[in-house]
Amino acid sequence: MAIRLAQNSYGKSRVRVFRVARHQDRHDVQELDVAVAFEGDFESVHTLGDNSKVLPTDTMKNTVYALARKHPIGTIEDFCLQLTAHFLQRNPQLWQVQVDATETLWARLAHGDKLQASAFTHAGEEKRIAQVRATRGETVVHSGIANLFVLKTADSAFEGFLRDEYTTLKQDRNRILATLIHADWRYAPGVGNFEALWNGVRKSMIEAFVQHHSLSLQHTLYAMGQAVLGDFESILEIRLSLPNKHFNLVDLAPLGMDNPGEVFVPTEEPHGLIEATLTR
Amino acid sequence: MAIRLAQNSYGKSRVRVFRVARHQDRHDVQELDVAVAFEGDFESVHTLGDNSKVLPTDTMKNTVYALARKHPIGTIEDFCLQLTAHFLQRNPQLWQVQVDATETLWARLAHGDKLQASAFTHAGEEKRIAQVRATRGETVVHSGIANLFVLKTADSAFEGFLRDEYTTLKQDRNRILATLIHADWRYAPGVGNFEALWNGVRKSMIEAFVQHHSLSLQHTLYAMGQAVLGDFESILEIRLSLPNKHFNLVDLAPLGMDNPGEVFVPTEEPHGLIEATLTR
Amino acid sequence: MAIRLAQNSYGKSRVRVFRVARHQDRHDVQELDVAVAFEGDFESVHTLGDNSKVLPTDTMKNTVYALARKHPIGTIEDFCLQLTAHFLQRNPQLWQVQVDATETLWARLAHGDKLQASAFTHAGEEKRIAQVRATRGETVVHSGIANLFVLKTADSAFEGFLRDEYTTLKQDRNRILATLIHADWRYAPGVGNFEALWNGVRKSMIEAFVQHHSLSLQHTLYAMGQAVLGDFESILEIRLSLPNKHFNLVDLAPLGMDNPGEVFVPTEEPHGLIEATLTR
Amino acid sequence: MAIRLAQNSYGKSRVRVFRVARHQDRHDVQELDVAVAFEGDFESVHTLGDNSKVLPTDTMKNTVYALARKHPIGTIEDFCLQLTAHFLQRNPQLWQVQVDATETLWARLAHGDKLQASAFTHAGEEKRIAQVRATRGETVVHSGIANLFVLKTADSAFEGFLRDEYTTLKQDRNRILATLIHADWRYAPGVGNFEALWNGVRKSMIEAFVQHHSLSLQHTLYAMGQAVLGDFESILEIRLSLPNKHFNLVDLAPLGMDNPGEVFVPTEEPHGLIEATLTR
Repeated sequence: MAIRLAQNSYGKSRVRVFRVARHQDRHDVQELDVAVAFEGDFESVHTLGDNSKVLPTDTMKNTVYALARKHPIGTIEDFCLQLTAHFLQRNPQLWQVQVDATETLWARLAHGDKLQASAFTHAGEEKRIAQVRATRGETVVHSGIANLFVLKTADSAFEGFLRDEYTTLKQDRNRILATLIHADWRYAPGVGNFEALWNGVRKSMIEAFVQHHSLSLQHTLYAMGQAVLGDFESILEIRLSLPNKHFNLVDLAPLGMDNPGEVFVPTEEPHGLIEATLTR
Repeated sequence: MAIRLAQNSYGKSRVRVFRVARHQDRHDVQELDVAVAFEGDFESVHTLGDNSKVLPTDTMKNTVYALARKHPIGTIEDFCLQLTAHFLQRNPQLWQVQVDATETLWARLAHGDKLQASAFTHAGEEKRIAQVRATRGETVVHSGIANLFVLKTADSAFEGFLRDEYTTLKQDRNRILATLIHADWRYAPGVGNFEALWNGVRKSMIEAFVQHHSLSLQHTLYAMGQAVLGDFESILEIRLSLPNKHFNLVDLAPLGMDNPGEVFVPTEEPHGLIEATLTR
Repeated sequence: MAIRLAQNSYGKSRVRVFRVARHQDRHDVQELDVAVAFEGDFESVHTLGDNSKVLPTDTMKNTVYALARKHPIGTIEDFCLQLTAHFLQRNPQLWQVQVDATETLWARLAHGDKLQASAFTHAGEEKRIAQVRATRGETVVHSGIANLFVLKTADSAFEGFLRDEYTTLKQDRNRILATLIHADWRYAPGVGNFEALWNGVRKSMIEAFVQHHSLSLQHTLYAMGQAVLGDFESILEIRLSLPNKHFNLVDLAPLGMDNPGEVFVPTEEPHGLIEATLTR
Repeated sequence: MAIRLAQNSYGKSRVRVFRVARHQDRHDVQELDVAVAFEGDFESVHTLGDNSKVLPTDTMKNTVYALARKHPIGTIEDFCLQLTAHFLQRNPQLWQVQVDATETLWARLAHGDKLQASAFTHAGEEKRIAQVRATRGETVVHSGIANLFVLKTADSAFEGFLRDEYTTLKQDRNRILATLIHADWRYAPGVGNFEALWNGVRKSMIEAFVQHHSLSLQHTLYAMGQAVLGDFESILEIRLSLPNKHFNLVDLAPLGMDNPGEVFVPTEEPHGLIEATLTR
C-alpha cells in the first residue's frame, strides 16, 4: 500500500517577548511565550525537499517581534488574532494558522503603600493562555488558565465508591481537595472584550470551587464548568483538566499519636487526573 | 441552551513501578511509569456526585502493582494489554480503557569486561513508550520512542525558502541538524512481537536520519517515517514530532576571527517544531 | 599516605509536610519541605559498616511528622529549632544537627470580597527559607527568601566598564534590570520574633531595589544588603545571590523598525551571577 | 557597627558552546556549559557604582567563544585552565578566577555496525564536570562526575541501626541500593593527562560500587572513595554526594499476595543524602 503524508504542520515554539509601554506617568509591561504553527500546501517540502513555499520559522519569530512593536499592548487573544491574520493574508499556501500564547502575569511592586510606576514582580505561578486557530473560513478563539493551585481543607468527601479485590482506599468524609487548574474555553464567533471575560471566568471558577460541597473531584469539576457556562453566554464550551494532588494523612499511630486531620504529606506522584468538557 | 457533559475521563497518572525478576544466574529489571484512564457511564458522578460506579484511582494504582506481581516481566505493550483487559472484564460501566506506559531503560554495569548479574545503570535519556486504547470492540496498540537526541554535522542544508519583509535568515548549505525524536506508531490489529518490532523501528529511523541528505527537517522527518512504513508492514501509521534544536553559528567577526563551522551555541528557546503523520 | 575520612554527614532531604490547624472559625495551613543532616561520631559506619550509632534517615522523617503534630504551627525558624534540639538531646553521638526548611506560602481564596476560612491558593513563586545549625555549644539561625523575581524598567544603567578586545557590549543608560532574589541572613544569638523580622527584611530589600538608581547589579545588591543591615540590628550578616536575568532589546532595524526600549527577549541562558556577603 | 563587604564575586553562568572539529575522515564534537566567576578589587563597584574595573560578564561569554575557536578540542580541564590563565594575565584587578565546566557527552550513531563520521547522539544522562580555581599563587583543579544513576538488586543490607520511639523502619538484608553519583576530586598540583585519569576514576568508582557488599550507603560511599584514592596517587581528595534513591517494596498483603523482592515503587521524595570527603 502506498505511503502518504497525512496531517502535518510546522512552526516556531517558545518565542518569548517582553513588551514595555512607556507612558508619561507609568510603564506597563507584558510577557508572552508564543508558538506559531502552519498547515497548508507543504507536501513537496516533505517528499522532495522543495522549500519554495516554506516561510522560515525564523521569520515567524521575527514577525512576533515586529507585531509586538507595531501594535500597543493588549490582550493575548488580540495579539494571537493579529498574528493569524497577518500570516493568512500574505501566504496563500496556508490553509490554517494556529497561534498559542502563554502570558506570565506581572504585578507592580510597592514602596510602603505606593504602587510603583516602573518596578514589577511576578504576580504568581498562574498563567493566562490563549489560542487562535484560523482558516480561510473560520476563526476559533480559546482562552484559558494554567497552573492555578487551589486547595480546600473542608467540604470535600469521597465515599460510596465501587470496590474490588484490589481496593484498599478508605471512605473519607473530610479529605483535603487540591488541584492545579488547567482550564480552556471556546468563545462564540465574534466575541471581543477578552479581558473582562477572562477575569469573569476566573472568578466564577474559583467561587464554584470554594462554595461547592464536593463529593468527588469530578463533581467539583462539573460545578466549575457549569458556573462558567451559566454565567457567560458567549462561551460555547469549556474543558477542565484537573490533577488530583493527593495530600495523604500521615498515619501517626505507630509513633503513638493520633492525627485528627492535622499532618499531611503532599505528593507529586502518583496523582489522579480528572478531565471533562462541558458544552451546550 | 442546556449545558451537557461531553467527553470525560478519569484515571491515575505517574504510577511508578520497578520490577525485579530474580533468576538463578542473574536479575532482570524493568522500570515503568503507567497512566490509566477510564471512559464510561460516569455522567451522574459529575452531575450528582454519585460514586457508585467509580472504581477509585487508588485501586487503579494497586492493580498496576498486582498485575506487575502476577505476570512476568515482558514488553510494556503486553503489560498495557493485560491492564486494559483486566479493567474492561470487571467493569461493565466502562466504554474504553486507555493505558499509557513509559519505560526507563536500564543497562547492566560492567566490572572490567564482565557484565554484572545484579548491578545496573540508566541506559540513556531515551524512553520507550506504549499506549493501548481498548473498547468493547477494538484494541489499538501504539508504540514509540521519546527523548532521543540526534545530531548531524554534515549533509544538512536549508535553502531556497520563501522570503518576506521580516525574513533575515540566511541560506545555509552546511548547518547542524539536531532534534529530539518523539515518534509513535500504530500497529495493525493482532500484531505481537513488540520487542523485535520496537528495536527494528528504532534502527530504521536512526539509519534514515544518518543516511539522509537533508534539505529541511521536514524532508528528514518524511524520510524517517517512510523508512519505518517501508520496512514494517505491520505498522499502519507513524507520527513524528521533531523540535528543531537550533545550534547557532557564533559570529566571531566582531572578535576579529572567522568561524568556519566550528563554534556554535546550542539553544533551548525558541525552537522550530515539525510534526507529521505518515500513513498508508 | 593513609586515607582518612574528613567532613561527612548524613540525613533526609525533601521531607514534605502540610499542617492544618482547625480553629473554630477558620483553618490555618502551612507547607514545609524539610532537610535534616547529622554530623557526629560516624567514622566506623563508613569504614566498618557498623550501624549501631546510626539513627535511620527514615526516623528523621518520622520525627518531622511527630513534631509537626506535637507543636502548633509557628515560624519555620522555630520548627527548625525544635527539631535540632530534639535530635541533639537524644543522640549523644551527634556533634551537629542542621535543619533546613523551605516554606511554600499559601494565601486564602476569596468569594467576592470575603476571604475564605478553609480554601487556599499558592501565594506566589517565592519561598521562605530557614536554616538552623546547632552544636553542643552554639545555635546559628539563618532566614531567607528564594525565588523572588523582581524587575525594573527604569533607573538602571551599566556604563563606564572595562573593555578588552573581546568586548562588544554597548553602554546602556536605560536597561531593564531583572533578578531572582535569593537572600539569606544570619541572626545574632538569642533573636526571636522571626515572623516580624522576615517581613521587615523582605520589605527593606524590595524598597531598596525599587528606590535605587542602579549603576550595576552589584551596586543594587549592595544597596539591598545595606538597607537590611541598617534597618535590623539583630542581623549580623546577609548574603545575596542575584542572577542577572537578561532582557535583550531586540534589534528591529533589519525589519525596518526602530525599538525605543519597547520589545525585549527574556532569556534563561547565559546569565550573569552576582554574589556578595555584607557583614558588620 | 559599620557595614562592610565581605566575600563577593561576579561572573557569567550557563555559557553554552558546541565545538566541531572537521577532520578529513570524521568530525569530532564537544558540548560544554561554562561558568566564569571573578573575585578581586571590586569594593567600589558595590559601594559607589564605579565600573572602571569591571570586565562585563558579556565579555566573559565572548571570551569562552574566542578561546573555543583558538584552541583545538581537548579536555574540559584544559579548557578551564586556558580560561583562567587568559583572565588572570590581562586583568590585574583580579585575585581569583574560577571556571566551572559541565560536559554533555556525545557518542557516534551507527548505521548497521558502522560508527558514523558526522552523526551523533547523547551518550547518556551522566555529565563530566571540571573546576579550576586560580589565584596569582595557586591553581587548583577538580574533576568530577554528575548525574550517574547506579543501582544494585543484591548485596545490599541495612541492619543493626539505632532505634528510638519514632523508628518504624525494618531491618533489611536484601534491599535495593540506588544512588545518583555526584563525585568530585582534587588533583595534586601539576597533574595533566586528565582524560585517562577521568576514565580511570570512573571505572574505579563503578567497580567498587558493583563489588562491594554494602552494609549501608555510607559504607559503599567509603569503599568508592577508598578505591579512587588507592588507585590514583595524583588525587589528593575526593568528595561524594550520594542521595539514597529509595525503591520501596510494595506491601501486597492487603491485595492477597506476597512480594518476595519483586515489585518496588521508585520515589523522588523524601530521599536520604550521604556526603563525605576522603582525603590523605
